[in-house]
Amino acid sequence: MIRHAPKNYKCPICIGLSGVERKDTLLKLTDEVYKDDVVTAYINSFWIPTCEGHVIIVPNKHYENIYELPNNVGQRIFLVAKKISIAMKNAYKCDGITIRQNNEPASQQHAFHYHLHVFPRYEGDKFESLQPKDKILSNPKDRMKFANKLKQYL
Amino acid sequence: MIRHAPKNYKCPICIGLSGVERKDTLLKLTDEVYKDDVVTAYINSFWIPTCEGHVIIVPNKHYENIYELPNNVGQRIFLVAKKISIAMKNAYKCDGITIRQNNEPASQQHAFHYHLHVFPRYEGDKFESLQPKDKILSNPKDRMKFANKLKQYL
Repeated sequence: MIRHAPKNYKCPICIGLSGVERKDTLLKLTDEVYKDDVVTAYINSFWIPTCEGHVIIVPNKHYENIYELPNNVGQRIFLVAKKISIAMKNAYKCDGITIRQNNEPASQQHAFHYHLHVFPRYEGDKFESLQPKDKILSNPKDRMKFANKLKQYL
Repeated sequence: MIRHAPKNYKCPICIGLSGVERKDTLLKLTDEVYKDDVVTAYINSFWIPTCEGHVIIVPNKHYENIYELPNNVGQRIFLVAKKISIAMKNAYKCDGITIRQNNEPASQQHAFHYHLHVFPRYEGDKFESLQPKDKILSNPKDRMKFANKLKQYL
């Protein structure tokens, strides 16, 4: 078992999933764009400035990384990532989609609950040189605009 | 249908999958680390200098991107990505795993056959600032060393 969450870790994603909005989590109820019995998808709180409104997909139960993610959960996450990618193309009119998933701090994993990023990409967005050092904490109202757009296609 | 492959595209991944080694493809038979009825995994020809020996997982049939990848194929790719991640941790003794999948040229997709990258990560590897501009074409003999290591755990 490979885990980096400290003992008594208050998982910000589990708190958000429980529907509670408080200081320990940045997730807001209005960030949610998709939910089923296995996974939930949110507009991510941190943004790459030129790729605003990106989504994270998380399992509803707590697993830290891909090594311990149950097969059926990972497979559901693929289905939802495909669905979100197609919806994003339609809703955001983006030029591409980058999918990224980080395991362990050496891979820039900061929240110790498995999450898969789905980024909208645009010609000339400089995504490579911007992430992760230039990510910004977004405003929940701005996230809501992207959530509303995306939900029309989900 | 969103496709960027030019008309009469000679897909380098399809050529490699057919077992042919020629100039149109960089893939060598000795790069293969895993194969089943749906997907194949190779040590990638291009390397990030500090994250050598990374793997790509490809569908055996030609699909350009996630938008058109059949559900069962994407789900199999997840299973193999998890398997490769765990094997890489054991074989390479890396500190983390980054998974990345690019769709369309705006997302730095260069080979127009769906492929998912599994990168070994190391503390201080500067992966973020190195990719993709500093990627290097590796030597098949060097790739074989990584393939042999990895296959011991697959």
